[in-house]
Amino acid sequence: MIIDCHGHYTTAPKALQTYRDNQIAQLKDPSLPPYDVRPDISDDEIRESLENAQLKLQRARGTDLTIFSPRASAMAHHIGDETTSLNWTRLCNDLIYRVCALYPQNFVGVCQLPQSPGVSPGNSAAELERCVTELGFIGCNLNPDPSGGHWTSPPLTDRFWYPIYEKMVELDVPAMVHVSSSCNHNFHATGAHYINADTTAFMQFLTSNLFQDFPTLKFIIPHGGGAVPFHWGRYRGLAQDLKRPPLTELLLKNVFFDTCVYHLPGIELLLKVIPTENILFGSEMVGAVRGIDPETGQYFDDTKRYLDALPIGDAVRLKIFQDNAFRVYPRLAQKFAAP
Amino acid sequence: MIIDCHGHYTTAPKALQTYRDNQIAQLKDPSLPPYDVRPDISDDEIRESLENAQLKLQRARGTDLTIFSPRASAMAHHIGDETTSLNWTRLCNDLIYRVCALYPQNFVGVCQLPQSPGVSPGNSAAELERCVTELGFIGCNLNPDPSGGHWTSPPLTDRFWYPIYEKMVELDVPAMVHVSSSCNHNFHATGAHYINADTTAFMQFLTSNLFQDFPTLKFIIPHGGGAVPFHWGRYRGLAQDLKRPPLTELLLKNVFFDTCVYHLPGIELLLKVIPTENILFGSEMVGAVRGIDPETGQYFDDTKRYLDALPIGDAVRLKIFQDNAFRVYPRLAQKFAAP
Repeated sequence: MIIDCHGHYTTAPKALQTYRDNQIAQLKDPSLPPYDVRPDISDDEIRESLENAQLKLQRARGTDLTIFSPRASAMAHHIGDETTSLNWTRLCNDLIYRVCALYPQNFVGVCQLPQSPGVSPGNSAAELERCVTELGFIGCNLNPDPSGGHWTSPPLTDRFWYPIYEKMVELDVPAMVHVSSSCNHNFHATGAHYINADTTAFMQFLTSNLFQDFPTLKFIIPHGGGAVPFHWGRYRGLAQDLKRPPLTELLLKNVFFDTCVYHLPGIELLLKVIPTENILFGSEMVGAVRGIDPETGQYFDDTKRYLDALPIGDAVRLKIFQDNAFRVYPRLAQKFAAP
Repeated sequence: MIIDCHGHYTTAPKALQTYRDNQIAQLKDPSLPPYDVRPDISDDEIRESLENAQLKLQRARGTDLTIFSPRASAMAHHIGDETTSLNWTRLCNDLIYRVCALYPQNFVGVCQLPQSPGVSPGNSAAELERCVTELGFIGCNLNPDPSGGHWTSPPLTDRFWYPIYEKMVELDVPAMVHVSSSCNHNFHATGAHYINADTTAFMQFLTSNLFQDFPTLKFIIPHGGGAVPFHWGRYRGLAQDLKRPPLTELLLKNVFFDTCVYHLPGIELLLKVIPTENILFGSEMVGAVRGIDPETGQYFDDTKRYLDALPIGDAVRLKIFQDNAFRVYPRLAQKFAAP
């Protein structure tokens, strides 16, 4: 079974964006009535949005299941307030639920959280619980920077975040550390902010005792872990200089990397330096990079091809494509036969 | 000739830091008189600070010349105001000048700039000119985020920065894009802020026409280019999706990467994906990572060893160790016989 741990509903029917546009328009002009008219989206529209995109690519690439969440760049927790975020989040999560209900063999849900700058992450616990216990989701996306590029929250290792970690542990679900769009002009969203957040989160974990407080807490750092594998010697060295335990002991029971790295040499490095147990197959299709690489004639984000091209052996392949996902997302086994 | 393009004076005599401490104390307590008593540092103290550190390591590792600048983490442009920054900067640059005068075969200077949040980078032009024309320096370090992790300046590609670029072009000197310490608790300086800034700057260049406006402007992105080589496919793909020219054409005449990547697989990847013409040898010793890698028994930051271990051939080696540095720092040829 080939499980893609990183997919967003980037192709949702237009009515979703229309809702968001109206919501934002109301924020800009408070004389308008509060906007919360849920869009009327039919099952056929949902099917159509997927058949020529994610489902077509699943078939073409030979992957089975996508761990699927709302469009990350559209979470935009920095827009409006907690209520804005909650209404938008619930709508997006409900749509993921419908996708998973229509295609239970192809998609399993991961939720967006109704974060908002300055608001306790504990306030997202109820939506996480709803998504896991009522909608059957198996994880969440946690935004380490709800301010959208201004980085005004405490680090992920601060007690500020502990209430949501308590709920994650209680429900036995991991979080993918995933920022959203950037309203800081310094940071291009998918080309800088995403990758920076991955690197930042890893270094926060490295300098903390978070996993002593939460031994079963699990994070997936997407986009191959940002800059981390490329600088693996730097991180091993920094940990040593800072008198931290070796990384394997300090955080590799709790931190995992996906394979959203869009060229063969990158994937090769990832597999060379990061233990196999810590790598989960992911592609983020249809996502940040949609074109075909003229050097290979294949989609940049067809990360399965890079893995297939490497002489890694069936045991390693099985872990990366399947077994690690079952370990990191324990609730996956409630839906699919565990390996 | 083996030229290390990335060294900071991290081992300066303590009197330098005492000056800085006094300067900061005055900022905190304005009832104290403005502090600008230059420390009394002897030539012997300077020699001693280098003999058992950078000079010893140059000899041990077989490198010849270090392109040397003030300690990057101590620039801290976010502290105080423009005058604070100018006084501190001139002092640090003058000390680099003395280092280079004492060891003209071992060190050549690159200056810190007196940047300050919200202040036009054009105000740094005079100090750059002084360092180049009076002190014989060959480049500068440009901090894309003088706010120290709050990223409040416009992107490097904004016209806000053009006055300093005009001076760089006039003087024919490149800049290393190098942030300083972080006062944002999210970002560990050497483990996150440095690497993020590298990635951020590259993506800013990718989305701009800066090098159409300044065809001869040159930047070195340190720390191997942050996350960029690891995600080279992502950047090639983003450029293509954004209808930008290929990266070689768009920015590789103007943007260069050093080799401050502290493990063999990282250096191997760097050389595999980045054109040889765009790679400059660098180690940042004595810098961010000071320990010995237990996996190799060698210093993490002995990046020459990684290059020596790769079957790259003498022509490639010559470019990375020497020729590219002469091309990127044209003023180097005024001091040393050009290749």
